[in-house]
Amino acid sequence: MSAPGPADTDRSTAHAFSNGLALLAPHMLELDRFLHGQLAAFEPEIRAMADYCIDTSGKRIRPALVFLSGWRGPGQISTDLVRVAAVVELVHLATLVHDDIMDRAEVRRNRRTAVREYGATAAVLLGDALFAHALNLATQFPTTEICSAVSESTRRVCAGEIMQTLRRGSTNITRADYQRIIDLKTAELFRVSCFLGARLAGFGPDYVEAVSRFGRHLGIAYQIYDDLADFFGEEKRVGKTLGTDLASGKLTLPLLLLMERLTPAERDELTAEILGQHPVQSGLHLQQMRSLGIFGAVAEAVTIEINTATAALQETAEEAPTPLLLGLCDVLRGQVLALQPAVV
Amino acid sequence: MSAPGPADTDRSTAHAFSNGLALLAPHMLELDRFLHGQLAAFEPEIRAMADYCIDTSGKRIRPALVFLSGWRGPGQISTDLVRVAAVVELVHLATLVHDDIMDRAEVRRNRRTAVREYGATAAVLLGDALFAHALNLATQFPTTEICSAVSESTRRVCAGEIMQTLRRGSTNITRADYQRIIDLKTAELFRVSCFLGARLAGFGPDYVEAVSRFGRHLGIAYQIYDDLADFFGEEKRVGKTLGTDLASGKLTLPLLLLMERLTPAERDELTAEILGQHPVQSGLHLQQMRSLGIFGAVAEAVTIEINTATAALQETAEEAPTPLLLGLCDVLRGQVLALQPAVV
Repeated sequence: MSAPGPADTDRSTAHAFSNGLALLAPHMLELDRFLHGQLAAFEPEIRAMADYCIDTSGKRIRPALVFLSGWRGPGQISTDLVRVAAVVELVHLATLVHDDIMDRAEVRRNRRTAVREYGATAAVLLGDALFAHALNLATQFPTTEICSAVSESTRRVCAGEIMQTLRRGSTNITRADYQRIIDLKTAELFRVSCFLGARLAGFGPDYVEAVSRFGRHLGIAYQIYDDLADFFGEEKRVGKTLGTDLASGKLTLPLLLLMERLTPAERDELTAEILGQHPVQSGLHLQQMRSLGIFGAVAEAVTIEINTATAALQETAEEAPTPLLLGLCDVLRGQVLALQPAVV
Repeated sequence: MSAPGPADTDRSTAHAFSNGLALLAPHMLELDRFLHGQLAAFEPEIRAMADYCIDTSGKRIRPALVFLSGWRGPGQISTDLVRVAAVVELVHLATLVHDDIMDRAEVRRNRRTAVREYGATAAVLLGDALFAHALNLATQFPTTEICSAVSESTRRVCAGEIMQTLRRGSTNITRADYQRIIDLKTAELFRVSCFLGARLAGFGPDYVEAVSRFGRHLGIAYQIYDDLADFFGEEKRVGKTLGTDLASGKLTLPLLLLMERLTPAERDELTAEILGQHPVQSGLHLQQMRSLGIFGAVAEAVTIEINTATAALQETAEEAPTPLLLGLCDVLRGQVLALQPAVV
């Protein structure tokens, strides 16, 4: 799920989205220009570091949601939308810089992570500086509404990540816990991106509310899809996940459902692996996932959220963003199908 | 240098300030009440963690600057000042949470640090959540001005800390580098605290500007004093500093001046210790500092900054905050004198 853009190097998922979002190509170019223009705001001594983080900016899903939710047709690109797209992207980049420290990640999108490049201490502070600048940009609107919405969302994203962190290595996670965590850590920024786009484009309160609900459920669906792809995606990604994520005790929906469906003895064994007491048996668990229908069950959870997202826009077919946003749902549905294993 | 307050456990410095700032006792109580009221804004799952950070809040110098710069006389306490004091204190607390991760600090003000209590990952995110909430609080004013000032200051504080981090272990630091770093990492938040207090209390632009300049130079003076106290303060603190800060390569003014005044052979030896090539000889360097007049030279640097701060308020004696702010300078002068070694 990706918007096209010069900085996008994640071709595998970018490809699926580039047809759907070709109409945003000029917006993304404008966003790039704007983001690079922001570097002047940083103290000269840290400008190159900020530039490094902005360069690794990835898929730009959240800016795409801003532009689509505020869509009034092609033509001139709204400065307000570009600025707010930059705000949500910078918040997202800041969380990535901090995530990479915590995950000890060395590479992101074919480049060394900020933590690898500058060390953990500088990376913590660099993430802080990006956050601070994002919120400073958000004050460059006539009212406090934008900055208020963004800072509240940021706090909620952090809360979701804290919950996920504290539950690592615990095998007592319920589906409700998982749902709550992804609602905060992922769906919140999707929601606020849609909210801000529609609001700044001047849509009425009912539509802004509908689009926000759409964004939230699309975000939940996207995170479940992403967790599914960790197990049923490309060989390379699956290997990495089973080797690190499972071993680090991060329980996502595929693993939660697997735990539910295993025999007590098998569950005890998987628990011991999650707790780091036994070595991880990747091949076995992938086999179990396939034979116990985990793919279908998780894909169904994605579908339910996509349907809720779609339902939020049901009575707003006449608004310009609606067909474009619904198109995102189709893209995501297609991406889930593309993951489907040959033999389920 | 400290304001009295229920959460203040740093008695050694609190004492020196408590006489001067007794008039702020009701303000600090109100601030405490307000900060604890903010916990409701955090997601229930992270509320106890946010509470833990707020409880360790320390000296509250920045809120004191807000209240004093906005002083209109005793009596009713302005809600605006309490809110903005909470904003600057939360930003400061967030930086402390992140600092403690980077310094691997275990204890702060007689309590375990957030990183010791919750782990580094949760502490990074908790600091982020505190930042985000501080900026959200800053949007609860009629205009974007407050949040804009705070977010810009926050970015500058981070930039200063990044510079300090990147220079650790380097022995090529100039006095200009040191000055620039403390101007950003410490003086910036002092400056903005004074700015916000005076601005929200409705003082005219000239006085707001004068008070901001005062705050900046008081902040520089305070940081130099603090760095001096690391070497000439209580025995316990000095031991810690020479054991850890010097060994970790953090070059502050006392060390910079010592480097300048040592013979080439002695300088090479100290450099080797800073680079971690030789064990640190604490006793020797304290002796060198005493015999080379480092105390006097650093104390003079503090005095120069205090004088610049004082000069900023020279023509504003009639404004209510002026005598109180000048009182802070006297307190700081007294604290420097109290550090003076028996034989210099």
